[in-house]
Parts: sequence; structure tokens; C-alpha cells
Amino acid sequence: MEPKLKLIILKLKPTEKYTIIDIKMMIVCVYNILKCIAKSALEVCYLKLFMDIWESKNFFIDLEPLPGGVEAVKEMSEMENTDVFICTSPIKHYSYCPYEKYAWVEKHLGSEFLEQIILTRDKTIVTGDILIDDKPDILGVEPNPSWEHVLFTACHNKHLPPNLSQRRLQSWADDWRGVLQSKRHINCLPPQSLMGSL
Amino acid sequence: MEPKLKLIILKLKPTEKYTIIDIKMMIVCVYNILKCIAKSALEVCYLKLFMDIWESKNFFIDLEPLPGGVEAVKEMSEMENTDVFICTSPIKHYSYCPYEKYAWVEKHLGSEFLEQIILTRDKTIVTGDILIDDKPDILGVEPNPSWEHVLFTACHNKHLPPNLSQRRLQSWADDWRGVLQSKRHINCLPPQSLMGSL
Repeated sequence: MEPKLKLIILKLKPTEKYTIIDIKMMIVCVYNILKCIAKSALEVCYLKLFMDIWESKNFFIDLEPLPGGVEAVKEMSEMENTDVFICTSPIKHYSYCPYEKYAWVEKHLGSEFLEQIILTRDKTIVTGDILIDDKPDILGVEPNPSWEHVLFTACHNKHLPPNLSQRRLQSWADDWRGVLQSKRHINCLPPQSLMGSL
Repeated sequence: MEPKLKLIILKLKPTEKYTIIDIKMMIVCVYNILKCIAKSALEVCYLKLFMDIWESKNFFIDLEPLPGGVEAVKEMSEMENTDVFICTSPIKHYSYCPYEKYAWVEKHLGSEFLEQIILTRDKTIVTGDILIDDKPDILGVEPNPSWEHVLFTACHNKHLPPNLSQRRLQSWADDWRGVLQSKRHINCLPPQSLMGSL
């Protein structure tokens, strides 16, 4: 079963000034496979089947972590001046999904991460600096979210043409530390430096 | 059984400029009673009992709405340039609470409100203009949340001395429309007016 990633919001607090970085990233992800298949010609035929799988008991809890995902989240949560949140959209059928997302986080990350979970269908009203997410278009009521969306590569988005205005993480082996660090540098710049770049 | 309110975030978009109002308000609330008792001398003796009740199956789903709460939320959600979100902190024991909060919203407000639910233990990183909540101290990683916290009166907070810097709603029969309207006016003021008040 292919692992799936899911959503993190991470907050960085530089020493000089309170700032934040939001990172949503997929920690588990199996239904990437289903999403990919659903984008093929089979979509109509198998839509009902996909829905049955997504909505079934133990679907979410049985998903395996993406390679390196759990380790990355734990590492960044231990970084100085850094707050990490796991922000995830539950599916509409709520019989099992919300419970199992909490259970998944406890199982793979530990009970201390239960405090960091945010379940929302609209991620645009959650504040932060970076959002790592595999969904190409993160839309909601807030047209100008506070975070920078860093696209996490998955089979359903890898065909998209390069977008100079959007950074990517190819996997958890990619330079996620550099992404965090770059944001931290920006947030630490004195106001004069920022004025000069406007 | 005394009803309990629970949390809403509401977004207002004035015509001239995009702005937001967050309102968290308690829609159901029975465990207010438990909170009040827990603040008494019985606290230590009955702590285990309270926890057993809070964590039991069907505790949340059986809570009755506060008088006027459901009607108020529906009315504000139909207001022009207004987005309403229901933002609630799940208890740590997640076996029933997250599922039952979704089920409660569907039962009393309708399935369309499922999209508006935000489950989070930290409400400070959710953006908005007004947050209506019965908890006197809403703390989290963000020391300066975007919303104004309007305290919703409950038995566990009514003994608090008047706080000139915090508005209150005594109940859903109180002037919640005026609170929204006041925020809308502030958000609609032209920049010159705001400059003059600084």
C-alpha cells in the first residue's frame, strides 16, 4: 500500500520578532492511488467503489506513513522557536474519518501531537507561514491566506507544469529544512530590508 | 439538562473591502453544569466521575441547544457578506467527541454546516473578526489573535468582575446582531478615519 502524506502547520518564532510558519503536509497517504485512478478514464465507473473505500471503517487508521514523514515532523517539532500543527480536511462522511485521523496521529506521532491537530474543510483561515500540502489549489473564504503553499509532490499533481511562483517538495528526502530556514530568514529581516525589496 | 453553547467563527465581508469576523459561540452546553460543580469544593472528590461523564459515549450528541442558539447561527449565516464557522475544541479522549460534534451540528444545524466545522485545541491561529466563546482565557501559540473575543456568559464565568476591554453576550436573546454590526462598521471605515483614531 503506497503511503500518503497529510498536512502540517508549522510555526516559527524568530528570536527578534514573533512570526509564524504554517506547514500542512500529508503524513499518511494511500488514497493518492485512488485519486490517481479516479483521474483516469475509470473515474465514472469506479466512483461509487472509491467512495465506499474512503468511507469504510479502518481506511484512515490503516494508512502507512510516507517514508521519512513521521521523522521529519518530529524533527521540526523539536526545532527551536517552532510550532508544528497537523491540519487536515476530513471527508464529508464523518462516521470514522475524524476519529481515525486522531488515532493515526497518536499511533505514529505520539499522544503529545493530539494537541496539534486541526480538522477543517477550509485551510485558508488558519494562519501560518508555510503550508505543505499535495493539493494544488487550496481555496476557501480567505483569498489571501497568511501561509506560503509549498506543493508536496504526489502522483496526482506531478504532471502539473512548473510554477515559478510555487515551491515544491518532491518527498521528505527533499530539502524541507531549507524551506523552513528560508522563511525564517525572511521573517528575521529588519523592516528596512523588506522596504528595499518592495 | 441545561443547554450548552459552543463556538462559531463568523466572517463578515464589507462591500468596500474584504474583512472578516470570527465568532466562536457555544451552541450546546451541558457540561457548564459540570464545570461549575468542578469549581466547588467537590472538585477533587468528583473529578474522576466528571471525566467518566465527559468521555462517555453519547455525551455530546445528547446535549440540547442553548435557547436561541441554533436560530441565531442560522440567521447570521444567511446575512450578506458573512461567513460563519463553528470552531470547537475536542476533549483529549477522542473516541466519541470528534464524531459526536459533527453529528450534533448535522442534527441541529443541518448537513450544510458540516463544511463550517473547525476542530482545534488552539483557537488563536484561526483568523477572524469576532470570536464568541464562554471560556474567559483563550490562549495558544498566537499571542495576538485576529479576532475580538466576546465572552458568552455561562455559570462558570458570570462571577468574573466586569472587564471594560471585553464585551459580553449574556445569552442569545442579547444583542448579538449589534456586536456583528459594530465590527462591520469598524471594518468599513475608510483608512483616514482609522488614522484619526490612532
